[in-house]
Parts: sequence; structure tokens; C-alpha cells
Amino acid sequence: MISITILGNGNVAQNLFEAFQKSDSINVVQVVGRTIDKLNYFKSRTSLATYKDDLLPADIYVLAITDDVILDVSNNLKVNGLLVHTSGAVPLSSLNKHNKIGVFYPLQTFTTGKILDLSTVPICIEANNNEDLQLLHRLGNLLSNRVTTIASSKRKALHVAAVFVNNFTNFMYTIGEQVCAESAIDFSLLNPLIQETAKKIEGTSPKLVQTGPAKRGDQQTLHAHLTLLENKNQREIYTLLSNSIKAMYAEQKDKPL
Amino acid sequence: MISITILGNGNVAQNLFEAFQKSDSINVVQVVGRTIDKLNYFKSRTSLATYKDDLLPADIYVLAITDDVILDVSNNLKVNGLLVHTSGAVPLSSLNKHNKIGVFYPLQTFTTGKILDLSTVPICIEANNNEDLQLLHRLGNLLSNRVTTIASSKRKALHVAAVFVNNFTNFMYTIGEQVCAESAIDFSLLNPLIQETAKKIEGTSPKLVQTGPAKRGDQQTLHAHLTLLENKNQREIYTLLSNSIKAMYAEQKDKPL
Repeated sequence: MISITILGNGNVAQNLFEAFQKSDSINVVQVVGRTIDKLNYFKSRTSLATYKDDLLPADIYVLAITDDVILDVSNNLKVNGLLVHTSGAVPLSSLNKHNKIGVFYPLQTFTTGKILDLSTVPICIEANNNEDLQLLHRLGNLLSNRVTTIASSKRKALHVAAVFVNNFTNFMYTIGEQVCAESAIDFSLLNPLIQETAKKIEGTSPKLVQTGPAKRGDQQTLHAHLTLLENKNQREIYTLLSNSIKAMYAEQKDKPL
Repeated sequence: MISITILGNGNVAQNLFEAFQKSDSINVVQVVGRTIDKLNYFKSRTSLATYKDDLLPADIYVLAITDDVILDVSNNLKVNGLLVHTSGAVPLSSLNKHNKIGVFYPLQTFTTGKILDLSTVPICIEANNNEDLQLLHRLGNLLSNRVTTIASSKRKALHVAAVFVNNFTNFMYTIGEQVCAESAIDFSLLNPLIQETAKKIEGTSPKLVQTGPAKRGDQQTLHAHLTLLENKNQREIYTLLSNSIKAMYAEQKDKPL
């Protein structure tokens, strides 16, 4: 049995809580927040406490709070066990004030009020000693079939990649929605295309399935699209991304077979 | 019964062929290509012909060929029925040499060798008279539960939006893959994130679910990410998209409640 205390009350805290609860080999002994009334979600399902209280003993303390307060909160924390954070961007060394430290980073985007199945979500772990790394491995395997050790430096690169495929992709959706709105087109028409665009690259390299006027070097369509975009920022993005795609595939054409 | 001739042999032609074949109310009388041996996919499943042959009579001739040859091929075509193309980018007027013309545009991305279920794929239709529009509506409804009339001008905007959510999104995946490769990280770790990013916006506006350092205005992380990106073009894209996201959400913050 692994005993866990969760510190935090947001989407990651809630999703981890539900995943932990599903396992017979994990016991969530306590959830900790700034105030008890912030912990309503967990009420009567485990013991609740604030950061100022003396915390119950646990094998692992999981800090599921926003990146910018991890250093501050952890520096003021008294825990008697392994302390891990759940962030993709924060280095392990942020927890250096403590002895036994680690990272338990579920590589996924979480939404308020939506509990995801974590069984296929990669859990990226790190620790400052082998025993704790093994413990995190064991914990990860109880949740997911994809647990992988990733050091802070690599995790940083992984997080940048995540910004491209998640943050920037979502922003592409937003521009698509704006372009639709300007022409009174129902954005939901694009939903099957959006889903298939994501599915298409399961098991294949996105570089191999790129399509569109920029890839084809179709100047006429590129020009027509730019004329249609009224927003200067949208035109700038359209131009930079189209030129980048053109350059990528023109390079390929120039390469000898 | 609607009788159909398909002109073309690519992904769209194959996907439409399979969808048409599934309906008892549609009869694919012929598939037409530049040469018979290009039509191997359809062999012994219907009559085959080349563009030079006299074509069999049909209610609708579906031109499923690449955008840049639609004008040329259609100008040299002799058909005795309604002629439609399947492109998002080409105006209806490209078919003006013919009498009865229309558009039958399945709003989806198709992959070689992959037959999709078209029942949820929007079919965007257009015609130059009401009778033919009704015929296309009937045909569309036999394939999909989402048939919608969209005039050429709107279809052009829809196509620009599709470039953002499909072409540019796929390019974001490609950059994510490159960033991973540079740090010897397995890109498939990002797959659950990519799928959930797409699923997240089913039924909600992407603008409402944007996350990340740019949205938060987290300068420290933005700077750290730029330092990590070695490729100038990637840095340029990261900067433009981050600044655009920052501007979008800063505007929101400034607005009175």
C-alpha cells in the first residue's frame, strides 16, 4: 500500500485523486489546500487540512499546484516523506530545500470538471535517488501503462514540444473559429476535420502527412487566402507558417534521392 | 436511385466511392481516370473509362481531382448531367462551361489507404439551380447526417479556417516532433495530449480553453523556452504565436466586466 497526500485542489489534483482512488494499492490519506472550503471537491472522501496544519504522515506528498507557486509553497512545507511536484516546466531542483524529492508529471491537458482516464497518459517521473525513483515507478504503474523516467533537462524540451502541440494548436483552432465567425459559418462544421487531423498522426510522423497550399507551393491559393484575411495578425501568422512549411518541403525536394 | 460517375482516382474519389457503394439508393455506374491502369482500386467493382472515352449517362458526375486541374479537365469534359467538383477552394464558376453545375465538398482530410466513415463528415453543397441543389442534398443525406448549403464565397472562408485547424495544426505537430527529436524524446509520448487537445474543444470554444505560458503572461517560462529552441524559424514561430496569444488575452483582461 502506498499512502499519498495531495497538496492542491485544481484539475490535476482532482484527476490524480480519482485515479489514486481507483487503485486498491493506494490510500489517499489527506488533501491539503489554502483553506478547507477550497477543498469542497474532496469533502468526506478523505481527511482535509490546510498548509498551516500539521500534516498526516504519508509515503508521498504530491504537490499539484501552479508552476509559479511551487518554489514558495514547497519552501514553507513540512513533510515527512517523498515530496514530488506534477509540473512539466519546473526543474526538480525547485524542491531542493527538502531531502527526498521527485517529479510525477502526467503529460496531459486537464479541464475543469472533466475526469480523464489516466491509463494511457504518460507519467514522466524523476527523483534524486534510486529508491524513490522506484517508488514513483510503482505508483505510476498503478495509474498508467506508460511510465517513463525523464530528467529535468529533457522534461523542459518535452514541455516546449507540448506548448506547440497543445497551446499553439488550440490557438490555431481559435483563429479557425474567428475566421468562421467573420463569415457567419458554424465552427462546429470543422470538428470532424479537427478530430481526424489529430487521429491521422497516431503512429505516423506528422511531417509525412502534411497537406495544403503551402506544402504544394500553390501561390494562387496562398494569395487568395491572404486577401480574404482581414485581421493583420492572422495574415502575419498565415504568412510565417506558410513560408515555414514551404521552406521545409522545398528543402526535401532539393535533396537527392 | 441516383446514378453517379466518379472522375478521379485519389483519396477523395476512393472514399466517396466506398460511401456511395454502401447506399442502396446510389449506383456508381462508372469511374473515370487518365488511364485505365490508374483505376486499379475500382477494378471489377464498376465500369472503368478514360477521359477520352464516351462516358456512360449518369445523374451526377463527381469530379474528385486536385484543385489546380479542375478548370482544365472540366473544360474538356463532355457530360450529360449535373457536374460537381469536391473542392473547398475552387469556386463554382470554374465549371461555368457546363450547364448544370455544383459543388459536393466533404469537409475532411483524407489519407491514402484509409477509408473513413463519412456519416459525421459535413458535406458542403452548392448548385446553380434549385432542382440540382435538392438532388445534391438528397445525395449528401444518403452519406452523411450533416449536409449544408454553402455558397462559394463562404466556402472560401471555410477553407481558410480549415487551413488553420488542419494544415497549420499538423505543422505544430511536426515542430513538436522536431523538438522531441533534438532531445532524443519519443514523440509518441505526446499523442494522448494531442488527442485530448482536439477532444477538448468538441462543444466548447477553443478561446475559452486556451492554456499555457503565453496565456498566463509567464515571461520566465517564455524566455526559458526561447533559449531552448535552437532553430531560428522555430523561435520566430514561438515568438509570433506567443505574442498573439498574449495580446488576445491581455485585451480580454482590459475589457470592463
